Amino acid sequence: MEMDPDSLAKAFVEHYYRTFDTNRSGLLGLYQDSSMLTFEGQKIQGAQNIAVKLTSLPFQHCSHHISTVDCQPSGAPGGMLVFVSGTLQLPGEEHQLKFSQMFHLIPAQGSFFVFNDIFRLNYA
Amino acid sequence: MEMDPDSLAKAFVEHYYRTFDTNRSGLLGLYQDSSMLTFEGQKIQGAQNIAVKLTSLPFQHCSHHISTVDCQPSGAPGGMLVFVSGTLQLPGEEHQLKFSQMFHLIPAQGSFFVFNDIFRLNYA
Repeated sequence: MEMDPDSLAKAFVEHYYRTFDTNRSGLLGLYQDSSMLTFEGQKIQGAQNIAVKLTSLPFQHCSHHISTVDCQPSGAPGGMLVFVSGTLQLPGEEHQLKFSQMFHLIPAQGSFFVFNDIFRLNYA
Repeated sequence: MEMDPDSLAKAFVEHYYRTFDTNRSGLLGLYQDSSMLTFEGQKIQGAQNIAVKLTSLPFQHCSHHISTVDCQPSGAPGGMLVFVSGTLQLPGEEHQLKFSQMFHLIPAQGSFFVFNDIFRLNYA
């Protein structure tokens, strides 16, 4: 059964942030050597480097809450852009942080990998 | 002289929002028939439909302020993803609205057109 793109995007996003919040090193498997992450303006390339960056962020626990998920087809056949807005709760922080993030997902072996990933906190 | 991708992305973003704020109908030329816009969750396809949507927004004047611009190569050779965060001042509104927006730019005839465009206001 094929899922429609919006359902696929939502399923990916739920999987991504659940993995981030409960087993961050498990994100490694979503990237490949060609993958790019721009995290708060810092450019990182390759699955290993991206996993090192994400697992070495200066907090152990966090909780993402998704507000919106938009998707559009782009790039390789079956590829899609996924655009997320939401909030991030860090331990010891009174206020949630707003963030937005985009992914370009490329089909690979019956699933997807993250080719592009850009993350920004939305400060005032 | 070739500009580096970050400079190109910044130049595009400045051009896009200057056009939006001063001559909104001029945005038509940045899109093609294959272009997609998702505006606050509403999906619109094709340059004409996108121009109609953008020029019929319920305010005549607005002012975008860009906070961050990130870019990564993706898709067709020379294509790039551009991710923007910023604020939007509407007439009569005391507070600025935060927004984030992404574009997938595809090279065409020595310039770029917008293939994908996703816009979201960042509410709390």
